[in-house]
Amino acid sequence: MGLHKPLLFALSDAPTGPNNLITDVAGITVGHKTIVTDRLRTGVTVIKPCQDNIFREKMPAAAHVINGFGKSTGLVQVEELGTIETPLVLTNTLSVGTASMALVKRMLAENPEIGLSTGSVNPLIMECNDSSINHLRDLGVTEADVDAAFVNASTKFAEGGVGGGTGMRCYQLKGGIGSASRQVIIDGQTFTMGALVMSNFGLSQDLNIYGRPIGKKLQQIQASKEKGSIITIIATDIPFNSRQLKRLAKRSSIGITRSGSFSGNGSGEITLAFSTANRVSHFPEHELTTIQAITDDQIDRYFRITVDIVNEAILSSLTHGQTTPDRDGKPILGLSAALSSLGNDFDALTLRQQLGL
Amino acid sequence: MGLHKPLLFALSDAPTGPNNLITDVAGITVGHKTIVTDRLRTGVTVIKPCQDNIFREKMPAAAHVINGFGKSTGLVQVEELGTIETPLVLTNTLSVGTASMALVKRMLAENPEIGLSTGSVNPLIMECNDSSINHLRDLGVTEADVDAAFVNASTKFAEGGVGGGTGMRCYQLKGGIGSASRQVIIDGQTFTMGALVMSNFGLSQDLNIYGRPIGKKLQQIQASKEKGSIITIIATDIPFNSRQLKRLAKRSSIGITRSGSFSGNGSGEITLAFSTANRVSHFPEHELTTIQAITDDQIDRYFRITVDIVNEAILSSLTHGQTTPDRDGKPILGLSAALSSLGNDFDALTLRQQLGL
Amino acid sequence: MGLHKPLLFALSDAPTGPNNLITDVAGITVGHKTIVTDRLRTGVTVIKPCQDNIFREKMPAAAHVINGFGKSTGLVQVEELGTIETPLVLTNTLSVGTASMALVKRMLAENPEIGLSTGSVNPLIMECNDSSINHLRDLGVTEADVDAAFVNASTKFAEGGVGGGTGMRCYQLKGGIGSASRQVIIDGQTFTMGALVMSNFGLSQDLNIYGRPIGKKLQQIQASKEKGSIITIIATDIPFNSRQLKRLAKRSSIGITRSGSFSGNGSGEITLAFSTANRVSHFPEHELTTIQAITDDQIDRYFRITVDIVNEAILSSLTHGQTTPDRDGKPILGLSAALSSLGNDFDALTLRQQLGL
Amino acid sequence: MGLHKPLLFALSDAPTGPNNLITDVAGITVGHKTIVTDRLRTGVTVIKPCQDNIFREKMPAAAHVINGFGKSTGLVQVEELGTIETPLVLTNTLSVGTASMALVKRMLAENPEIGLSTGSVNPLIMECNDSSINHLRDLGVTEADVDAAFVNASTKFAEGGVGGGTGMRCYQLKGGIGSASRQVIIDGQTFTMGALVMSNFGLSQDLNIYGRPIGKKLQQIQASKEKGSIITIIATDIPFNSRQLKRLAKRSSIGITRSGSFSGNGSGEITLAFSTANRVSHFPEHELTTIQAITDDQIDRYFRITVDIVNEAILSSLTHGQTTPDRDGKPILGLSAALSSLGNDFDALTLRQQLGL
Repeated sequence: MGLHKPLLFALSDAPTGPNNLITDVAGITVGHKTIVTDRLRTGVTVIKPCQDNIFREKMPAAAHVINGFGKSTGLVQVEELGTIETPLVLTNTLSVGTASMALVKRMLAENPEIGLSTGSVNPLIMECNDSSINHLRDLGVTEADVDAAFVNASTKFAEGGVGGGTGMRCYQLKGGIGSASRQVIIDGQTFTMGALVMSNFGLSQDLNIYGRPIGKKLQQIQASKEKGSIITIIATDIPFNSRQLKRLAKRSSIGITRSGSFSGNGSGEITLAFSTANRVSHFPEHELTTIQAITDDQIDRYFRITVDIVNEAILSSLTHGQTTPDRDGKPILGLSAALSSLGNDFDALTLRQQLGL
Repeated sequence: MGLHKPLLFALSDAPTGPNNLITDVAGITVGHKTIVTDRLRTGVTVIKPCQDNIFREKMPAAAHVINGFGKSTGLVQVEELGTIETPLVLTNTLSVGTASMALVKRMLAENPEIGLSTGSVNPLIMECNDSSINHLRDLGVTEADVDAAFVNASTKFAEGGVGGGTGMRCYQLKGGIGSASRQVIIDGQTFTMGALVMSNFGLSQDLNIYGRPIGKKLQQIQASKEKGSIITIIATDIPFNSRQLKRLAKRSSIGITRSGSFSGNGSGEITLAFSTANRVSHFPEHELTTIQAITDDQIDRYFRITVDIVNEAILSSLTHGQTTPDRDGKPILGLSAALSSLGNDFDALTLRQQLGL
Repeated sequence: MGLHKPLLFALSDAPTGPNNLITDVAGITVGHKTIVTDRLRTGVTVIKPCQDNIFREKMPAAAHVINGFGKSTGLVQVEELGTIETPLVLTNTLSVGTASMALVKRMLAENPEIGLSTGSVNPLIMECNDSSINHLRDLGVTEADVDAAFVNASTKFAEGGVGGGTGMRCYQLKGGIGSASRQVIIDGQTFTMGALVMSNFGLSQDLNIYGRPIGKKLQQIQASKEKGSIITIIATDIPFNSRQLKRLAKRSSIGITRSGSFSGNGSGEITLAFSTANRVSHFPEHELTTIQAITDDQIDRYFRITVDIVNEAILSSLTHGQTTPDRDGKPILGLSAALSSLGNDFDALTLRQQLGL
Repeated sequence: MGLHKPLLFALSDAPTGPNNLITDVAGITVGHKTIVTDRLRTGVTVIKPCQDNIFREKMPAAAHVINGFGKSTGLVQVEELGTIETPLVLTNTLSVGTASMALVKRMLAENPEIGLSTGSVNPLIMECNDSSINHLRDLGVTEADVDAAFVNASTKFAEGGVGGGTGMRCYQLKGGIGSASRQVIIDGQTFTMGALVMSNFGLSQDLNIYGRPIGKKLQQIQASKEKGSIITIIATDIPFNSRQLKRLAKRSSIGITRSGSFSGNGSGEITLAFSTANRVSHFPEHELTTIQAITDDQIDRYFRITVDIVNEAILSSLTHGQTTPDRDGKPILGLSAALSSLGNDFDALTLRQQLGL
């Protein structure tokens, strides 16, 4: 349910949506499949942008690559056509191919015309490297796991070390899935913006929360070379076009780095933004249509919200993260545990209070 | 072995390499796995850029998206880091995930440190939609097929409807794999440039060979909506950096459209260029190094060659294409058969002579 | 105006507009200022996208850089905001600053709020290097010349060596301004697409018209290193958004290279496409609006037309080009003269007939 | 001479260069021309990347557009060729054309072959909108002013409201020119990285220094709509290529937003990075050369420094900013005055101490 208390240092004073989750945007559901065995701590998270057929009625979208040390698929077509035509699947780096096949099979089943009377389909798989916690080389995700995540899709979903976030690490603490949302009134109508992140980036020494460089104090706990990444999904029912969605997507990097990181070389940072408004027909009856549009004139409002919900989603992934053994059995602390380990340190106490930990 | 006779209307007079194939660039091998069953006409083509470990010694590279209606993977990281770290796998659109997993497994086997002491690996899979000829929905490519293509890799390889090109169609004729090469002397040293295409684009009405709009005459033979694409690989031992390789890759579109097409909406046209010079170490001993470089001052020479070898590789894919039944059993003519069908038509006769058909 | 006879080898059979000029798109006017003195052969061409205030009611637009060896200004903002907010000024490379100041002053005069209650303005100046014919170092264009081009703006305008095209050279023949247009019916309504080029690219040896490599025969006439470029403007009243306009702009390169060139290193090739539909208000009353839109589903039609009108505009710039002395007094032949110089050569005779020369 | 005290919350512990200025990179000089009259508060700042002929021996470079609401010129060619070939001129938005002509004339004077035996030249002019303080519509910068800035170029230069920064405003306080540098040892050799900013972005409410949201307290002082921008120059003698320089340039946005901003719609944010190593000859003797190179393996070190020096340069522009009347005569406070105005406020006192104000 997002961050327990309001985000401090927010750029916008827009209120959160009912659940403070990306699913506050009408039509969106999220499902996890969490895989935990002796050797595996990994999984799959699915974002369904709608409950009807997204292949036949696509959505305006844009992707932005903050740092391209990543293996996400499907972005080339999003850039060209400005649409998404499948749900989004988040998993570990080496399971992208498996997730792709699972998603392709679902799309084929739902759309018997693909590969026959119409062309193909563009599966969107996004990933982070969970090899600090998970035995990545075991290729532990199966197509059935992807299907299970779809089955679990709901407007309510857990955050932290679940689904695709099961093995993810953020600032060397337990990261994973986090989410947030805001509501905004435009010309008298209420709209919603939501973010979901799979956080797996950052070194602990750099962690800064609410102006407190708490990571400097945590540094002694753990230190290693970064092999991170972060996937960010931004969703809204505001009728942005793909150019505007790209502008929003670019602001996600500000939300990310507000917690102290600097988009390191090995951190694949990729953001995908989509709008549920102005669906784009695969089989249009007419070429000419009329659509909703929004000017760029007041877009700063939405930039501010984007920074806030991405920033908050990351914090939420941290506050929901529970201490988890790494690949070698050593603990990856949850933020709560990490702050507790600092005892009566003033910054730690303050942050625990501010974050509701 | 490339086009039977020299390319007409060439931009460069550079001579071909010994085999007029991309494998004339030292170290490169190409392997096919051709899959033909009752329902399947598809396959896999592998380009191995070197015979040693490309993950540990990567190659400078760049990708260019001419038209992004495509599902190739791995391009995001190529753009960021300017290197490739795996062989290239070409197959049909819906088998990208399968090919990705097969390639990942090979890379894991060859590099036990991936996912443990080092990060992950960026599999490069490129694709076209062969659903005109192949029952694409059958997902007929297996991981074993990808392995078989690797086993078959050699400096000699077939062109036309083989490997990944088995089910491909070009200008509604039989297309597929084609290749060409040129040699050039720079400051007294001999270098090689090569191209390999998997051609699957174009409507017959637009086909123009050597200034003859032969497609207008073929038009009556077959007509349907385009669901094409073309993948182009450019390789060289000239020490271009990734910026220069991108400039070369951009010129591939000129080579493509010289046969009459216009990069249609549904035609995913993606080019990847790499250099075998200046390998980039995954585990560098020192940060500072000395590398070979080439100025942009005379780059027009290499632009001209790029256009020629791409143009010629496409023609070669057509001249090697043999008449093949489409998904419904109707013949997709090879270019030779198509020209023959025009009987004593002057343009057809001339082209048959010029193309050695 | 435009090409005297229909384009051969066209990709589309759409009819030309009434004047076969970019000004067939309603609202557009074009004006030249031609500067010819002892040392100067240069000038200015202005494209006014509308007759009302474009700063207050901007137009959707996109730019595409085919080869970035160029000095055009304003493209950064077009990419970000997807709009143009000034007329377009075409001139020689070293006069971009002068043209920029002249355009800024006009915009300030027409919009007293710029720099006071609102921000600034993004002048769009595009250029080619006319130093083969013009004494470029003399910086011969004045702000008054730019104003004069504005005064001359009309729906009728000359082609060839006029305005910004006065000193331009194309395939080492006399080039300059060329234009073309097509009409197309969409869902029962008639729309127009137009192109205007300032052609200054190509080596004579590469010139190929209608499948005839005529440049090989012209080659002996003149030969020197290329210092070319081409600016292409595409205009339409079809309600494309900026993403779609960029897709159109990309196809301009196909139209350019159909005459034989290969986008040489020194050839700055830049295309700007805009739509006169869906004006974008600088001072919007509401954020939310309703706009016209067109699907990508049939966009191949407009891709075909784009290739044709760019190809034809270049040919038109050549057929309108008259023999002109170069900087040293040696003749730069017009295409007509060049073909005549080949006497009874079959290709030359055929092209003279086909081009109406 | 940069920030008075060390940057807090730094990502890197690299020491500053001797002057903590961009001119600590050997060969670079910076010159200002400050224009203050009744109506004008504007000017010009010039960065000379070397003291020899940069046109004949260019420098590797890359530009990154954070937010493209800007009118800088020359970036298209930098992207294509990966080099700069002129000094950099920073001025106000509407004087770009004037600065361009002044720079062109200087380049013509120094290079008599331009426009004759060789092509043209790509002037690099970068800008922010100083209309809050300056009467921008007066077009107050002359070509002589640009020349004066060149004459003033030196390794020592002032910061704050000088040169191009004279009329600039940052977080609604007095901004302008700021600079910083760091030294780093690579494989036993010492190298330098420097940054220079012209800061003109941000709303006071968002200002956050060292984790203190001081802007919330300043907010009541002044409030208006943003019409900002920031130009960032990054220079180094580390032998990065243009791809790597672009990666560095991208990290500048993190340095910018660490003070609280979010890259607002109207804020043109553009960064240019160049290396003084591996000069690129305009007239190369040979095509093949040998150059210095650096791997990406440890590039995080330089990313960290980039964030720090950009962050610090902005703070330095603020700490050097002196209270200045705006266009209407109302004071734009310097940061020191603004903090003083908060009296004994704890955050203000702390920041004054930390910033040496």
